[in-house]
Amino acid sequence: MQRPDYAGKRVLITGGLGFIGSNLAIALVESGADVTVVDSMIPAYGANLFNVEPVRDRVHINFSDIRDRHSLEHLVREKDHIFNLAGQISHIDSMQDPMTDLEINCVAQLSLLECLRRVNPEAKVVFASTRQLYGRPQYLPVDEDHPVNPVDVNGINKLAGESFFRLYHEVHGIESVSLRLTNTYGPRLDLRSDTKGFLGIFLRRALQGEHIDLFGTGEQKRDFNYVDDVVEALLRAGQTPEVYGQALNLGHPRPYSLNELVDILAGLADFTHAKKAWPADRKKIDVGDYYGDYSRFKEATGWEPEVDLAEGLQKTVEFFREHGSHYL
Amino acid sequence: MQRPDYAGKRVLITGGLGFIGSNLAIALVESGADVTVVDSMIPAYGANLFNVEPVRDRVHINFSDIRDRHSLEHLVREKDHIFNLAGQISHIDSMQDPMTDLEINCVAQLSLLECLRRVNPEAKVVFASTRQLYGRPQYLPVDEDHPVNPVDVNGINKLAGESFFRLYHEVHGIESVSLRLTNTYGPRLDLRSDTKGFLGIFLRRALQGEHIDLFGTGEQKRDFNYVDDVVEALLRAGQTPEVYGQALNLGHPRPYSLNELVDILAGLADFTHAKKAWPADRKKIDVGDYYGDYSRFKEATGWEPEVDLAEGLQKTVEFFREHGSHYL
Repeated sequence: MQRPDYAGKRVLITGGLGFIGSNLAIALVESGADVTVVDSMIPAYGANLFNVEPVRDRVHINFSDIRDRHSLEHLVREKDHIFNLAGQISHIDSMQDPMTDLEINCVAQLSLLECLRRVNPEAKVVFASTRQLYGRPQYLPVDEDHPVNPVDVNGINKLAGESFFRLYHEVHGIESVSLRLTNTYGPRLDLRSDTKGFLGIFLRRALQGEHIDLFGTGEQKRDFNYVDDVVEALLRAGQTPEVYGQALNLGHPRPYSLNELVDILAGLADFTHAKKAWPADRKKIDVGDYYGDYSRFKEATGWEPEVDLAEGLQKTVEFFREHGSHYL
Repeated sequence: MQRPDYAGKRVLITGGLGFIGSNLAIALVESGADVTVVDSMIPAYGANLFNVEPVRDRVHINFSDIRDRHSLEHLVREKDHIFNLAGQISHIDSMQDPMTDLEINCVAQLSLLECLRRVNPEAKVVFASTRQLYGRPQYLPVDEDHPVNPVDVNGINKLAGESFFRLYHEVHGIESVSLRLTNTYGPRLDLRSDTKGFLGIFLRRALQGEHIDLFGTGEQKRDFNYVDDVVEALLRAGQTPEVYGQALNLGHPRPYSLNELVDILAGLADFTHAKKAWPADRKKIDVGDYYGDYSRFKEATGWEPEVDLAEGLQKTVEFFREHGSHYL
């Protein structure tokens, strides 16, 4: 397909001050879209005003929680596209505080869809879902026919969330697509959190010269997407009618083990690392090897990741070396 | 297995004044259990104090909504068994008022599990789920390996609900099982509602000598469970450790078409009937033929439905002829 064109489009990005949302906002503003970002600013969720610094005077910022139906109803009016990235993304936090995860990842999504049905049924919606809902893979790479079997509260709620989008497409004609994101990294990643995945923790520790613990053998494989590739996928998803109503994987053609990831990082920063036994609470929600088959999304949109892990990590480290004071 | 023995057991039944809950309460009281029923008394949901009339002086009745975490926390304390039947069961209502369905079928279930984790992690829980989460069958009979693909908000929320029970079993050791109920009928069925499935509507109209509309050809097949058989399944589920952590189908060895059902009813009551085109909003959430494979539950518990449709409908009609003033 052609490069998606958002010039002149009115776009709402929920979670738009977070990691992926802000990268998307910058890309959209630079392509001439009229962009509103909405963010709840809940401290643990990674919103950072500095994230939209490059487009600060060209983006509308609205502080609000997507659980607030009344403000949401005004925000979704007259938008052509909605990129729905607001979410509680920590698997660990979802087990400690399941009700909050439920409210944001499930209740608020249904609330958004009800808003759209009432005031803007024409909007095109891209929902950021997660590969976490597959649970422990039964085969690799995991395609969309793989049974879903979430191993944590976050996965259950995300599955319900994307099911609402599919249903409202089928029954009410709301044009939406869910992308099942895998491990995403790059500039503006939240480095402060200890509960949002190993990537932020590893990067923070590498940049600060601290020790990195690798749980287990370190041989568990993952597919890593550089954030620019994910932004490109989101943009294509929003303008590809044949994917509406579906939930599709992202992924990367070359999975890496965590040992390989740490080896690449070791070439970019000075830190020590060692293997360590799994803590019991994390072992319970670990899924082992995971990498996804993204051929359906590729076929429909022509999307293909362009950045490999070594290049992406180098760019990421450079970004944080320059702007570290805002992230560390 | 042996007939389950609940003598002396402390049992909580949520939704205990509803159709299945009250039949279960009567069976449990009569077998010597110490039974508390909790019910929200939301008018549309079918609670009826007359439902527990046969055991009225031997059952504890607590009016409360399971969305109320504080009362729930007291209710679940020191219970050996919890039969969790409280729910919004109307597929049609779930599309009209999705947020309420979400609160009851999804949010309140997670809230219950959090209560149990805090104050009574030893309780054995049976969760009443639904075959609705399979959506339109890809093959028949539908077994538990059939992909889930809910076609309405109710199905999505019930799937999330039972996923929470499975997860809390795996991660927190809460002993629970979900039974995926199919069309259930019998004494104490809510006859007043127009949105809780055709069985109540057909029975009410047959008993009142009114006209019955059959949507489509009438050839769509269903498996019908008489409520005593479902009560027996619930009782066995609560005392069969090998089913904990699973979600299992109920069903019936002999599916009937809706035409056959109406023919049987016509032998029991005087009414007229005719076929009619599907209303658009109902067609969208209709699933066509459905009947389930319940062999896994049968193998684990020895359960087998004992009542066929003709016998069950006759008993049902007799009950309502005697007690109709409380139901019509």
